[in-house]
Amino acid sequence: MIMSIINTKVLPFNATAYQNGETVEVSEADLLGKWSIVFFYPADFTFVCPTELGDLADHYAQLQEMGVEVYSVSTDTHFTHKAWHDTSETIGKITYPMIGDPTGAITRNFDVMIEEEGLALRGTFVINPEGEIKVAEIHDLGIGRSAVELVRKVQAAQHIAANPGEVCPAAWTPGADTLAPSLDLVGKI
Amino acid sequence: MIMSIINTKVLPFNATAYQNGETVEVSEADLLGKWSIVFFYPADFTFVCPTELGDLADHYAQLQEMGVEVYSVSTDTHFTHKAWHDTSETIGKITYPMIGDPTGAITRNFDVMIEEEGLALRGTFVINPEGEIKVAEIHDLGIGRSAVELVRKVQAAQHIAANPGEVCPAAWTPGADTLAPSLDLVGKI
Amino acid sequence: MIMSIINTKVLPFNATAYQNGETVEVSEADLLGKWSIVFFYPADFTFVCPTELGDLADHYAQLQEMGVEVYSVSTDTHFTHKAWHDTSETIGKITYPMIGDPTGAITRNFDVMIEEEGLALRGTFVINPEGEIKVAEIHDLGIGRSAVELVRKVQAAQHIAANPGEVCPAAWTPGADTLAPSLDLVGKI
Amino acid sequence: MIMSIINTKVLPFNATAYQNGETVEVSEADLLGKWSIVFFYPADFTFVCPTELGDLADHYAQLQEMGVEVYSVSTDTHFTHKAWHDTSETIGKITYPMIGDPTGAITRNFDVMIEEEGLALRGTFVINPEGEIKVAEIHDLGIGRSAVELVRKVQAAQHIAANPGEVCPAAWTPGADTLAPSLDLVGKI
Amino acid sequence: MIMSIINTKVLPFNATAYQNGETVEVSEADLLGKWSIVFFYPADFTFVCPTELGDLADHYAQLQEMGVEVYSVSTDTHFTHKAWHDTSETIGKITYPMIGDPTGAITRNFDVMIEEEGLALRGTFVINPEGEIKVAEIHDLGIGRSAVELVRKVQAAQHIAANPGEVCPAAWTPGADTLAPSLDLVGKI
Amino acid sequence: MIMSIINTKVLPFNATAYQNGETVEVSEADLLGKWSIVFFYPADFTFVCPTELGDLADHYAQLQEMGVEVYSVSTDTHFTHKAWHDTSETIGKITYPMIGDPTGAITRNFDVMIEEEGLALRGTFVINPEGEIKVAEIHDLGIGRSAVELVRKVQAAQHIAANPGEVCPAAWTPGADTLAPSLDLVGKI
Amino acid sequence: MIMSIINTKVLPFNATAYQNGETVEVSEADLLGKWSIVFFYPADFTFVCPTELGDLADHYAQLQEMGVEVYSVSTDTHFTHKAWHDTSETIGKITYPMIGDPTGAITRNFDVMIEEEGLALRGTFVINPEGEIKVAEIHDLGIGRSAVELVRKVQAAQHIAANPGEVCPAAWTPGADTLAPSLDLVGKI
Amino acid sequence: MIMSIINTKVLPFNATAYQNGETVEVSEADLLGKWSIVFFYPADFTFVCPTELGDLADHYAQLQEMGVEVYSVSTDTHFTHKAWHDTSETIGKITYPMIGDPTGAITRNFDVMIEEEGLALRGTFVINPEGEIKVAEIHDLGIGRSAVELVRKVQAAQHIAANPGEVCPAAWTPGADTLAPSLDLVGKI
Amino acid sequence: MIMSIINTKVLPFNATAYQNGETVEVSEADLLGKWSIVFFYPADFTFVCPTELGDLADHYAQLQEMGVEVYSVSTDTHFTHKAWHDTSETIGKITYPMIGDPTGAITRNFDVMIEEEGLALRGTFVINPEGEIKVAEIHDLGIGRSAVELVRKVQAAQHIAANPGEVCPAAWTPGADTLAPSLDLVGKI
Amino acid sequence: MIMSIINTKVLPFNATAYQNGETVEVSEADLLGKWSIVFFYPADFTFVCPTELGDLADHYAQLQEMGVEVYSVSTDTHFTHKAWHDTSETIGKITYPMIGDPTGAITRNFDVMIEEEGLALRGTFVINPEGEIKVAEIHDLGIGRSAVELVRKVQAAQHIAANPGEVCPAAWTPGADTLAPSLDLVGKI
Repeated sequence: MIMSIINTKVLPFNATAYQNGETVEVSEADLLGKWSIVFFYPADFTFVCPTELGDLADHYAQLQEMGVEVYSVSTDTHFTHKAWHDTSETIGKITYPMIGDPTGAITRNFDVMIEEEGLALRGTFVINPEGEIKVAEIHDLGIGRSAVELVRKVQAAQHIAANPGEVCPAAWTPGADTLAPSLDLVGKI
Repeated sequence: MIMSIINTKVLPFNATAYQNGETVEVSEADLLGKWSIVFFYPADFTFVCPTELGDLADHYAQLQEMGVEVYSVSTDTHFTHKAWHDTSETIGKITYPMIGDPTGAITRNFDVMIEEEGLALRGTFVINPEGEIKVAEIHDLGIGRSAVELVRKVQAAQHIAANPGEVCPAAWTPGADTLAPSLDLVGKI
Repeated sequence: MIMSIINTKVLPFNATAYQNGETVEVSEADLLGKWSIVFFYPADFTFVCPTELGDLADHYAQLQEMGVEVYSVSTDTHFTHKAWHDTSETIGKITYPMIGDPTGAITRNFDVMIEEEGLALRGTFVINPEGEIKVAEIHDLGIGRSAVELVRKVQAAQHIAANPGEVCPAAWTPGADTLAPSLDLVGKI
Repeated sequence: MIMSIINTKVLPFNATAYQNGETVEVSEADLLGKWSIVFFYPADFTFVCPTELGDLADHYAQLQEMGVEVYSVSTDTHFTHKAWHDTSETIGKITYPMIGDPTGAITRNFDVMIEEEGLALRGTFVINPEGEIKVAEIHDLGIGRSAVELVRKVQAAQHIAANPGEVCPAAWTPGADTLAPSLDLVGKI
Repeated sequence: MIMSIINTKVLPFNATAYQNGETVEVSEADLLGKWSIVFFYPADFTFVCPTELGDLADHYAQLQEMGVEVYSVSTDTHFTHKAWHDTSETIGKITYPMIGDPTGAITRNFDVMIEEEGLALRGTFVINPEGEIKVAEIHDLGIGRSAVELVRKVQAAQHIAANPGEVCPAAWTPGADTLAPSLDLVGKI
Repeated sequence: MIMSIINTKVLPFNATAYQNGETVEVSEADLLGKWSIVFFYPADFTFVCPTELGDLADHYAQLQEMGVEVYSVSTDTHFTHKAWHDTSETIGKITYPMIGDPTGAITRNFDVMIEEEGLALRGTFVINPEGEIKVAEIHDLGIGRSAVELVRKVQAAQHIAANPGEVCPAAWTPGADTLAPSLDLVGKI
Repeated sequence: MIMSIINTKVLPFNATAYQNGETVEVSEADLLGKWSIVFFYPADFTFVCPTELGDLADHYAQLQEMGVEVYSVSTDTHFTHKAWHDTSETIGKITYPMIGDPTGAITRNFDVMIEEEGLALRGTFVINPEGEIKVAEIHDLGIGRSAVELVRKVQAAQHIAANPGEVCPAAWTPGADTLAPSLDLVGKI
Repeated sequence: MIMSIINTKVLPFNATAYQNGETVEVSEADLLGKWSIVFFYPADFTFVCPTELGDLADHYAQLQEMGVEVYSVSTDTHFTHKAWHDTSETIGKITYPMIGDPTGAITRNFDVMIEEEGLALRGTFVINPEGEIKVAEIHDLGIGRSAVELVRKVQAAQHIAANPGEVCPAAWTPGADTLAPSLDLVGKI
Repeated sequence: MIMSIINTKVLPFNATAYQNGETVEVSEADLLGKWSIVFFYPADFTFVCPTELGDLADHYAQLQEMGVEVYSVSTDTHFTHKAWHDTSETIGKITYPMIGDPTGAITRNFDVMIEEEGLALRGTFVINPEGEIKVAEIHDLGIGRSAVELVRKVQAAQHIAANPGEVCPAAWTPGADTLAPSLDLVGKI
Repeated sequence: MIMSIINTKVLPFNATAYQNGETVEVSEADLLGKWSIVFFYPADFTFVCPTELGDLADHYAQLQEMGVEVYSVSTDTHFTHKAWHDTSETIGKITYPMIGDPTGAITRNFDVMIEEEGLALRGTFVINPEGEIKVAEIHDLGIGRSAVELVRKVQAAQHIAANPGEVCPAAWTPGADTLAPSLDLVGKI
């Protein structure tokens, strides 16, 4: 159930990622203490994915300033990630960790495995510093995601977490007004 | 599992909605033959919801032109929907059907019930004319949604459905280029 | 089973009520130490209910003098209760707590949920200061209740509780004779 | 569950009753085609019961005119009913059938058996000509019932059945106004 | 199984009996320390039963001298027992406790309940001071029992208990010879 | 349960009996069409048994005149029955069939097996021509039975069977009055 | 399984035997410390059995000298054993214990019960002083056994037990050569 | 259970045997229509076995004249049987089929597998022309069998089968008297 | 179990392979009618694998002449196979189909999945034209395979299949002698 | 599963082997501390097996120098192994232990039992000094194995174990180059 994803803790995992020419070990413990985006895509060396991953790479500096780490995940190995990084101009821009999930364990933890293909759906998850999933978004395979909108969601989530008495109205962006709930407002909006 | 939502058919339901001063019966059969958005929110007479529902009302004419019907759903009755519509300026703008789901049956069909509160999560679903869910998006309660981005996703989904040989790259909007997959492109992007 | 209701203790619950412009938390612990009436009805903003709730509001001062608290319950939220209280003249008279039960937990505790509608039957329960249910009365939806008869039942229940050696004969009202059981009376009445 | 009683059909039974010096066989089929009251009490030759049964005997002519049959039920045999009828002045007035239920089958059908005593609770049930239970009322043992209020409930139930578009407001009696539900009334009462 | 009755201990019970104008509480503990007869019959105010109960009443003094208590049991209440005792000449002679078993618990302990009627079979049980059943006798409803033969059986049972080395031959009465078993007697009788 | 014995049909069995120097096959079919007594005892060549069996042999002519067949049963073989018949004067008088039940099948059919000894209790059963058990009587091992009383019970059972409208009062013997049940007799005896 | 018999310990039992005019209690403990033969037969007072039992009686002195006890067993009682011993010349010669097994417990311990007859097969078992079964032999009912061959088997079993390094070749009798196993003998015999 | 062996039919099997320099297929169908001996032993190339098998080979001509076939069985393969037959003088005499049972299927059919060793116990079975086992004999490993006694048992079994009215007394050999059972003989032998 | 692999049929599968710049669909049906080698390795872009795959590519012409098809399998996608083929000189030599098994279905069919890594063991399988596995060989990850020896095994398997009466002795190569089994050879080799 | 064999520990076993005219006890503990080959074959005194076993005997000295022990295993007994060793010239050369596995326990431990024949498949296993299986190879019955290739595999396995940072490329033999894995090599081979 989606319901069991939102506000649940990220399940334990151990994985090997490729990042900047190095092998990096990643586990769920690395997600604690800062905001994270976990970004699933179907397979290396395919077509929509590079533009999504490149779009995200272009916003990586902004996300880093916001204190957000990004992890891309597919069911390929980290060896294949390196080979793709070496040969693709778009992918070569990426400096965030690219997690290899050949067993599908992480993909199944987030319930985005397409079992009949062994590949992940296009699922995006925003996770708070306590390791709790706050936003979940899944697209059927052909529909690309927007990094700009993703950044906006993280901003809204961070704002609410920092200002417990407020809630963000529709399409809020930083600087816009928020609302503070009160019984007097019932029926007034 | 989210996975069981994407590309599955909408489950059968029967509900009563309030629309333009009338009582309307709605079932899953009404979703067939056109694109639909099913838009869940926690409760009438609360705070973030009106702005989200109003934001969606402001884009309703555009969505109608795109051939898309919109259904809002909460676990309140349609009597309460009418009362809210009568007394709130923002809600008074709405002309799409507002479904009452006091048993929670539809909310559970889409796996967005918060069982300990009896209220729905902020879940949005884009459904194609065959009744299959193509996009799922769920926010924790405080994080508002964007109608603009929702329109963009429907446009991408409609474009792919109309052009089977293409896929939409990241953050695609109508008029931008799309990609046609081919083995020759492997490793070239 | 009804049998499991009569003389059983009220099951634990936690709820939010609307009362006199305030939000009030109510639990089963609040029912201990005094007599209580728990009064279920199907839904806010509907038709028979307001007259029943108003009839009860008219007898609230008398019941308070008898040391009895009154709780009305429906599966609407307390936000909706406030909105109804703000807009309805009849409901605006109410000063007893109006409990919101959107999860249906309390309604199911008293076995009066109509599962296929998500609404409560017209069930009335008289509860003694030990939290034990002494009277249960349930009507099909169209049949209104009588506050006068309800007051009489509470009086009879209170009289018996205060005078352990007596039982109330049919249609007893305060001041009338009661009976003290004895083997000698067998076959004499 | 009480909920399973209201609007369910009376379960099948076969019983022997005492009526006017005769032995009468009664089954659930006898309840079809007219309105019925099934009136449980704990035991013959005890104390509150005679006054309740006598109170009901005094209203029997009125109920007969309304087309209502009355059945009293206890777990005694019909032999004991006859003996009680022979020796008690109050019981001697009764002309409705007194059903003997020594196996407790009918008492359990209506969920009013006190299993640890083998006796029935003071349960009253109003049943329509289709054999469906429309009103259920159960008192703890010491609290006597009112035949006047019982007649009022039957009148309300009969009125609704005869006038499908109306509902009875609180404490309605024949001749008073009723309400016809309509969406326009939402929030107007 | 009958086998599980003979030589088993009487199962625990609690009951209220009518005896000499008083209400008496009886339990299995009252059966210890002396010989007892437990005498089941179908119902008060019926036909064969009074003669059997009167026959037993006529031998009660003799049984008391033999140190034997007698308990009659039916599924009527003790209120009904009193009423019968008040109105029947035959039953009015009885001075032994008449147990009311409206739940059928004792009747089922001795496996003599006719479930489809809620009445006891004509079962008679002789129980020794250790609470063990030594004789069981059950008749179909129409066949009356003989108090004389019952007295003879108790005499035989008491004689054997008092003279461990002897066994009673057929139709033995006090004063007649008994047999002392010995291997030498094999094939000699 | 004893209750399951009274008024149940005799279960099927096949056995070999010794009778008058012959081997006789007996089954439950032989019990149909006339009254039967099935008379269990623990073992051949023991002590009480011969007197009981001899007492019964002395009444066999009277029972035959009444149309009653007698079967004695123990868990010995029919070979042993013959040997006992040859060597014991008392047993030598017997002319009714002596059934051998070395498997204990019949003994268990009537629930009178003492499992820890492999021997039958002293159980007596009166069976009507329809093969239904009407009287059951079981004694602990040392307590002998009375053939006279057994004859009286058969007479009462036969009388009731022949006169459906009558019941036998206590200790009835042929020629004495019986009772015809009627509602008018309630409370008159 | 036979396999579970050979080399398993005799299961616990308690039985009463007839021996030399006395009643003797026998249990599995009596079999420890010496060699035993347990000799089952179908029934007393039948035909083949006496000759087998007499044949064994004729070799009893020889077996006693060899330190072997003999127990015959049937499902008859020890009372019947005595009666048979008193009346049969062949059986009268027996001085070993004749065990009565009316419950069939011992017969089932050795898996030789014919369940549909309640009688034992002709089974013979040789048991060593540790209570372990070393030889099992079972014949269908008509085939008599040979005491001479039985004595030979016991001799072979005793010889092996006393001379651990040897094994007895076919048809060995005391005094004949035995074999001492050795790898060098492989393929040499 | 041994009991399930005696008088049961031989279970189906398929096996390869070595006989007279040939490979022979054997199944349970080959056992029908004549008497058979199935003779298990632990293993080829061991010590007691050759003498038992040779003893049996010496009586093979006699058994053939009696119409009896002999099958030896061990869990070795028929290849090993041939090798043993080639190299051992004793085994070289054998002309009956030597069955190889490397799966242990036949050995388990006759319940003579020693599971912890994978070898058969010394089990001998006499089987009639209907394929029913009439004699079973099992020895612990060190105790050799006697072919002479085995021949005697087969003679007794054949004699009984040919003369239904007779039974063989103990240690019978052809030409000796047999017994014809009759009720008159009870207690006379 | 390995045992369930040898001589079992290849389980059904559907897969996409990369071969000579094309996408090729492969299923178990493609293995029928000729000999096949299925050759598993852990992952593309790793170290030992290229030499093994290249070694096999060097013998592919010889195997094709022998009528043998070769399939390599890893849990990578066919997109990754193409990318590897494009960038690696050794892999670029390959002209046999390279199957992508991202779901692991084929890898699990042959029981060579390392579940904790999502990668295949180095398993080699020789399959006959009936689709039956005749040779299975699995190495721990570091131990490379020999294409020469693999060719020899296929030759032996093909020779046996073509010459049913022969078996191949150790280390046989084409042209060397084979053996024809016969009972006469037992013990002669 | 094969997967459960590779890298699992050898399961516990106890067996008797024939070696150099002696009986040797072997258990899994004997495999620890050195490299081992366990070499299964179907049966003694058959045809392909001798050449395989002889081929292995010819390389035994080389394997001993490499510190490798060899164990052959079939489901014959060690007695049969000795007999075969005595009579076959080829087998007579063997000096490694020949394990007898008549229960099939070891054969099942390695999953190479052909259950319907009771014989082992031609399975070869290379085991490291920690008792872990590193190579598994199984042939259908007619296909002989190569001792030369087996020696090569052991050499590769030993080399990897001694040089943790290296892996052996295809068809490696001692002295040839090996590879040291490194991320830099990805896509370079």
